[in-house]
Amino acid sequence: MIPGPVDIPPRVLRAMSKPMIGHRSKEFGKILEECREILSEILNTSNDVLIISGSGTSGMEAAIGNLIGKDDKIAVIENGKFGERFAEISEIYGNLVHIKYEWGEPIELGDVEEALRKGVKAIAMVHNETSVGLLNPAKEVGELAKEYGALFILDVVTTIGGDETKIDEWGVDIAIGGSQKCLGAPPGLSIVSVSDEAWKMMRERRPYYLDLVAYKRSAEKRETPYTPAIPLFFALREALEIIKEEGIEKRIKRHRKQAKAIREAMVELNLELFPKINEVTKYSNTVTAIKMPEGVEDGELRGRIASMGYKIAGGQEKLRGRIFRISNMGNFSSKEILGVILALEVALKELGVIENIGKGVERAHEVLNKS
Amino acid sequence: MIPGPVDIPPRVLRAMSKPMIGHRSKEFGKILEECREILSEILNTSNDVLIISGSGTSGMEAAIGNLIGKDDKIAVIENGKFGERFAEISEIYGNLVHIKYEWGEPIELGDVEEALRKGVKAIAMVHNETSVGLLNPAKEVGELAKEYGALFILDVVTTIGGDETKIDEWGVDIAIGGSQKCLGAPPGLSIVSVSDEAWKMMRERRPYYLDLVAYKRSAEKRETPYTPAIPLFFALREALEIIKEEGIEKRIKRHRKQAKAIREAMVELNLELFPKINEVTKYSNTVTAIKMPEGVEDGELRGRIASMGYKIAGGQEKLRGRIFRISNMGNFSSKEILGVILALEVALKELGVIENIGKGVERAHEVLNKS
Repeated sequence: MIPGPVDIPPRVLRAMSKPMIGHRSKEFGKILEECREILSEILNTSNDVLIISGSGTSGMEAAIGNLIGKDDKIAVIENGKFGERFAEISEIYGNLVHIKYEWGEPIELGDVEEALRKGVKAIAMVHNETSVGLLNPAKEVGELAKEYGALFILDVVTTIGGDETKIDEWGVDIAIGGSQKCLGAPPGLSIVSVSDEAWKMMRERRPYYLDLVAYKRSAEKRETPYTPAIPLFFALREALEIIKEEGIEKRIKRHRKQAKAIREAMVELNLELFPKINEVTKYSNTVTAIKMPEGVEDGELRGRIASMGYKIAGGQEKLRGRIFRISNMGNFSSKEILGVILALEVALKELGVIENIGKGVERAHEVLNKS
Repeated sequence: MIPGPVDIPPRVLRAMSKPMIGHRSKEFGKILEECREILSEILNTSNDVLIISGSGTSGMEAAIGNLIGKDDKIAVIENGKFGERFAEISEIYGNLVHIKYEWGEPIELGDVEEALRKGVKAIAMVHNETSVGLLNPAKEVGELAKEYGALFILDVVTTIGGDETKIDEWGVDIAIGGSQKCLGAPPGLSIVSVSDEAWKMMRERRPYYLDLVAYKRSAEKRETPYTPAIPLFFALREALEIIKEEGIEKRIKRHRKQAKAIREAMVELNLELFPKINEVTKYSNTVTAIKMPEGVEDGELRGRIASMGYKIAGGQEKLRGRIFRISNMGNFSSKEILGVILALEVALKELGVIENIGKGVERAHEVLNKS
C-alpha cells in the first residue's frame, strides 16, 4: 500500500502477455483510441487526451516544455515534493514565480492571486501532493487562473481514477495523469489532456520526444509519433475496463471512504495526521500521511508491518523518518484497508506505543460500512 | 518480420506478468543492475550504460539535448529516415551542419571530414539505417570524429544485439539502443551509453526527464530518477538471458548469415536491393530493403505475403510503394527466413513476376547451411 506503483490485478498483468503487434496496426489503433475515450470520461473533459510512453514526470515536462520559453513566466505552487518538481522543470524552460510553502502546509488563495498578478503565462499545481497527503484546491486555483488569463496546468497523477478530476469544469488547460496509481495499471505511461486555449499558446520550439503537437497529429490517425510501449497499452486498456466495470463514481466514493476510514482510525489510535488543511486545501483521498509516533524508528515500524504482509511508505527526502504513508490507490477492498490498520496496531503495540489492539480497526470498519 | 517491434518469445511475454514491485526496492535494483551489465557486454563498452523508460527517439533526444546548446554546432549524417530524425532534434537544440544524402545513398568520408572541419561539438550518425537497409561506417566516422575532437553520437537502435556494436573500439561517446529490435524485448526502453569525455561536455541546462546526469546518479544507487516502466524491465532482463544463452557472438553470426541469405535469394529472384553501398557503407545485417518489382503494387504484394502468415514492411514516407523490407531482427530461425522467402516467391508467381517457385529458397538454404 505504497503510493504507486500499485499492485496490479492478475487480469491486467496477463494482458501484457499478448503477442506483440505493430504500432501502426489497426489493432493498436483501436486500443489507443479506446484508452483515450475512457480516459476522457474519467477526466470529464472534451479536451484532447494523449498518451505518452514515459512516467508522470515526462507528462509534467511535456506540459511546461511545450508552453514555456525563456521569455515566459510560470507560477508554481509548491507544498510538497512534486510541486517542487514542477518548479525544477520550470526553471529549465522559463522564469519561475514561486508560490512556496513548507511541505504539508495548505495553500492560501491570496498568495496564488499575488503571483498571478505578475503576468504569468501559466500556473502549475499538483492536485494531490502524495508526498504529504494533501489535496490541493483545483477548482479555486482554476478560477483564479482564468480571471488573470493564465493557463492552468494540473498534475492529477495520483487522483485520476481515484478522486474527482473535473478537468473542463475546473478550467484545466493541461492535465497530467499517470498509469501506475489509482488507475491500477503498471508504470510507464503518462496521460496528458490539452485544451484549445493551450494549443493556441504552444511554443514554436518544442521538445521532440515530448512534443504534444506531434502526439495530437498522430492521435488523429490513431497512432503515436514514436514507438509506444505496447504491452503497457494492453495493460492500461484492461485496467480501464476494470474501472468501467466498477463505475467511476463508485470508484471515487470507495477511495474517499477508504481514506476517511484510515484517517479516522489514526485519530482513534491517537496518531496525528501530518498535513495541515484549511478551507480550500483538504486531506488526500488516495494517500494518508501520518506523523511518526515519538520514539518510533521508521524502519522498525515499517519492517514489522511488512512482516505481516503489508508494505507502506515512509517519508520522502526531508520527511524521511518523520512520517509514514498509507496509500489506498487502485483496487483495494475493505479487507486490505482493515488489514493494514490491524498490522499497524500490532506493530505499535509491540513497540509500546498503544496498549490494546482493535480500536483503529473498529473505527475504520464503522466508516467503511456507512453508506 | 517487420523491423520492430519484433515478435517476443513467450518466456519474455510471461516475464511481464510478474506481480508489481516497488521501483526503489532491492529486487528492482538487482534487475536494473543485471540489465546494465549484460548490455555493457553486448555494447563492448566500459562506459556508463543507462536505461530510459521511453522509445529509441527519447534516447536520441537525450544524447543531443544533454550536449548541444544554441551556441553549439552538431554535424548529422543523413541517408535515411532516422538520420533525418537526428537532424530534426539537432535543429531544436543547436546549430545543424548537414551531411546529407538521398535516402539509401552511401556515406563518403570526405563529406564527413568537410563537416568536421567546421568545428562541431559532436557528430551524430545512425549505425543501421532501417528505412533503407544500410549499415553506416561506425569505425571510420569514429576515427574522424576523434581526429577533429568531436564527440561521436551513434544510434545503434537496430544493431544492438544483432550486429557488432564495438562502442569503445569505435570511440562512440554516446550510443543509443532500443529494446524492441534485435534484443527481442518489447518496445518502451531506450539504452544510452555515455563516455567520460561526453560527461565532461554535458550542458548546464539539460532536459529534465531525459537528463542523463540524473540517470547516472540514480544508477549508482541502482535506481532510476523517475518511476521506470517496471514490466518492461522484467521483459528486458529475460530477453537478455536468452541472448546470453545463445551467446552474443553466435547471435551476430546468425543475423549476418540470415541477412546474407535473404539478399542472395533476392538476387537469385532477379530482384534488386534498394540501397547503394561503397567501401565503407555496407548492406544492413538486420533488415533488407528491396526495390518493388516493376508493376507490382505494395499492398497487393504484402497482403499476399501476409495471407501466408508473414508480415513484412513497406517503405516509409517517400519510399512508400517503392521498396519493401524484410527484417531478421531478434530471435528468428532458418524456418522463418526460408518461410518468408517462400511466401514472397509464391506472391511473385501469382503476380506474374516469376515463373517458378523455389530458386530463392534454395539459394537461401545454401547460405544458411554454410558454416
